[in-house]
Amino acid sequence: MNIGGRHYRTIWPHADGASVEVIDQTRLPHEFAIMRLANLSDAAEAIRSMVVRGAPLIGVTAAYGLAIAMRFDASDDGLTQAYQALIETRPTAVNLRWALDQMRASIAPLSPSARPEAAWTRAAAIADQDVAISQRIGLAGLPLIEKAYAKTGRTVNILTHCNAGWLATVDFGTATAPIYMAHDAGIPVHIWVDETRPRNQGAALTAFELNHQGVSHAVISDNTGGHLMQHGLVDLVITGADRVTAQGDVCNKIGTYLKALAARDNAVPFYAAVPSSTIDFTFGDGIAEIPIEQRGSEEVATMTGRTADGRIETVTVVPDGSPVANYAFDVTPARLVTGLITERGVMTATREALAAAFPERVGR
Amino acid sequence: MNIGGRHYRTIWPHADGASVEVIDQTRLPHEFAIMRLANLSDAAEAIRSMVVRGAPLIGVTAAYGLAIAMRFDASDDGLTQAYQALIETRPTAVNLRWALDQMRASIAPLSPSARPEAAWTRAAAIADQDVAISQRIGLAGLPLIEKAYAKTGRTVNILTHCNAGWLATVDFGTATAPIYMAHDAGIPVHIWVDETRPRNQGAALTAFELNHQGVSHAVISDNTGGHLMQHGLVDLVITGADRVTAQGDVCNKIGTYLKALAARDNAVPFYAAVPSSTIDFTFGDGIAEIPIEQRGSEEVATMTGRTADGRIETVTVVPDGSPVANYAFDVTPARLVTGLITERGVMTATREALAAAFPERVGR
Repeated sequence: MNIGGRHYRTIWPHADGASVEVIDQTRLPHEFAIMRLANLSDAAEAIRSMVVRGAPLIGVTAAYGLAIAMRFDASDDGLTQAYQALIETRPTAVNLRWALDQMRASIAPLSPSARPEAAWTRAAAIADQDVAISQRIGLAGLPLIEKAYAKTGRTVNILTHCNAGWLATVDFGTATAPIYMAHDAGIPVHIWVDETRPRNQGAALTAFELNHQGVSHAVISDNTGGHLMQHGLVDLVITGADRVTAQGDVCNKIGTYLKALAARDNAVPFYAAVPSSTIDFTFGDGIAEIPIEQRGSEEVATMTGRTADGRIETVTVVPDGSPVANYAFDVTPARLVTGLITERGVMTATREALAAAFPERVGR
Repeated sequence: MNIGGRHYRTIWPHADGASVEVIDQTRLPHEFAIMRLANLSDAAEAIRSMVVRGAPLIGVTAAYGLAIAMRFDASDDGLTQAYQALIETRPTAVNLRWALDQMRASIAPLSPSARPEAAWTRAAAIADQDVAISQRIGLAGLPLIEKAYAKTGRTVNILTHCNAGWLATVDFGTATAPIYMAHDAGIPVHIWVDETRPRNQGAALTAFELNHQGVSHAVISDNTGGHLMQHGLVDLVITGADRVTAQGDVCNKIGTYLKALAARDNAVPFYAAVPSSTIDFTFGDGIAEIPIEQRGSEEVATMTGRTADGRIETVTVVPDGSPVANYAFDVTPARLVTGLITERGVMTATREALAAAFPERVGR
């Protein structure tokens, strides 16, 4: 997608062929900064500190991280250590495991001397595959927007939560892919962008990318979606997901469940757009089974932004002495999900539909 | 209630007997500053700019504002102008109209020379009455917390949204009154404090006052309540309200509706604690009938807090060029409300129960 009219992916090989560059997403939307990841610890730290975030981009960064690590130590021990260091960075991110398992399966059988080049090629293929998947998700979701437009003949209002945009993937995004395609096809769309506290990825990232693509939008507080839906101001909700279970429960950024409840209460369709690597067929009941990451209190207690005179400052917004709790994700039960938009089309969030669409993945 | 161990109301007469002092709530929680309201425009501006906020405190401030205005111009024209200037400050606040109507009814029949003193006495009575109402709300709601404690024998977890605390009233608060009484009675309570974007009244005000009263609490992002309820971490929800309709619909700070949906989905009781002056018997269907105030975009686009070195800074958190929408309230339909905690006891949110409890108010 574009920034200032120039096309970027979110991760790309450096000219040295031995490292990668990424957009430092912790500095958006106020600064556009590029960070180089030159070794295993750079890659692990970039994932842990959310320089890169979003399930698909985390997977691709982990893949490149493993490939970079192979240039330093391609022994069996080196492979095990790199795999372990990367997988521990984000416990909820199923794509991370998926990408690392792909990488390990393809290079473990090779001799250590052959691993660095093979790993690099494989990581690049995973990145390209992610772009292709986003495009297919866009094509699968586009008819939902076309249908809403055909029904009303006016601007289609879509609410999204967090950032499941191109910044969360390598290009195009997941939840945003159908939106960008609809926009490119000339369908008038307007996006309600949930601010998405505590990390503000909606306000900071989704608004940033919609703005650079020229898509009409407005940032709203996370409290607002229900009111908009009560008044007919939302035609559909499209979010991403960090993990989808075999029965269709959607684990996504904290607050998604509240929007899904409001969507159901107001008969607004609620979709999660996901690459199938996000579906974890080893989990069933998402609420009971998925461990929810708790993150640092400073994410809730502070906000970072730009002062009137252009400085980036972090300010504390809770009183001295008040504790904070910071749960990162919640689970939206499948009964509230109208459908899942995947690279194999749109399907209901049921065990049967998922098993039919991904027969090779069932139980794995 | 206490600040630093000293008792304060939120509004009190200045020693000159002709003006009042209030806590400047826009500067909490980082600065405790007192502001003097010496004329009509001070009072109107304090309400408009949310130096004072919360339905009951707005009403009392308006009452004192009218009394202060009478010292400058107690003619019929002066009374009309003061009434008009004050009522226009906050379109959603039904207590504002209630307090102003009380004031006007008591002083309009008097000669202009008698009005200033009578108005001052009446405003003081309205303030004292508000304290008594908060105490009665506390006594009415206390058994709900006692019951939850008796059932589980462990700390009672209560979620609240926005600030319906003593800072929203003259003393004790509405939603917080039962909490403070339970705390004083030795019942272990823990309060989940919704941050309450965009104005952060939960993080800034509710956390501040709970902290000064020594009540266990944690600030959470507004997205978190649903997840907590799914995992049995909320025993009841108590919020305030800006307006309750004759059929029991609850208009309150934006996002209340989302918490009520989650409460219903998880069988958690949801209560609104309100002085009966908040009930507007002229409204029926809250979603269709109550106009929702839209406020300035800067409330969503910026955050004010304290820097690490102690300066108060306002930072912009949305990208340049991204529009913002800021709806201030939403309506929770009565079907999601377990009960209303009023100064006449706890009642179901139905037309019948409200009419039975407040027969003198029906249709007015």
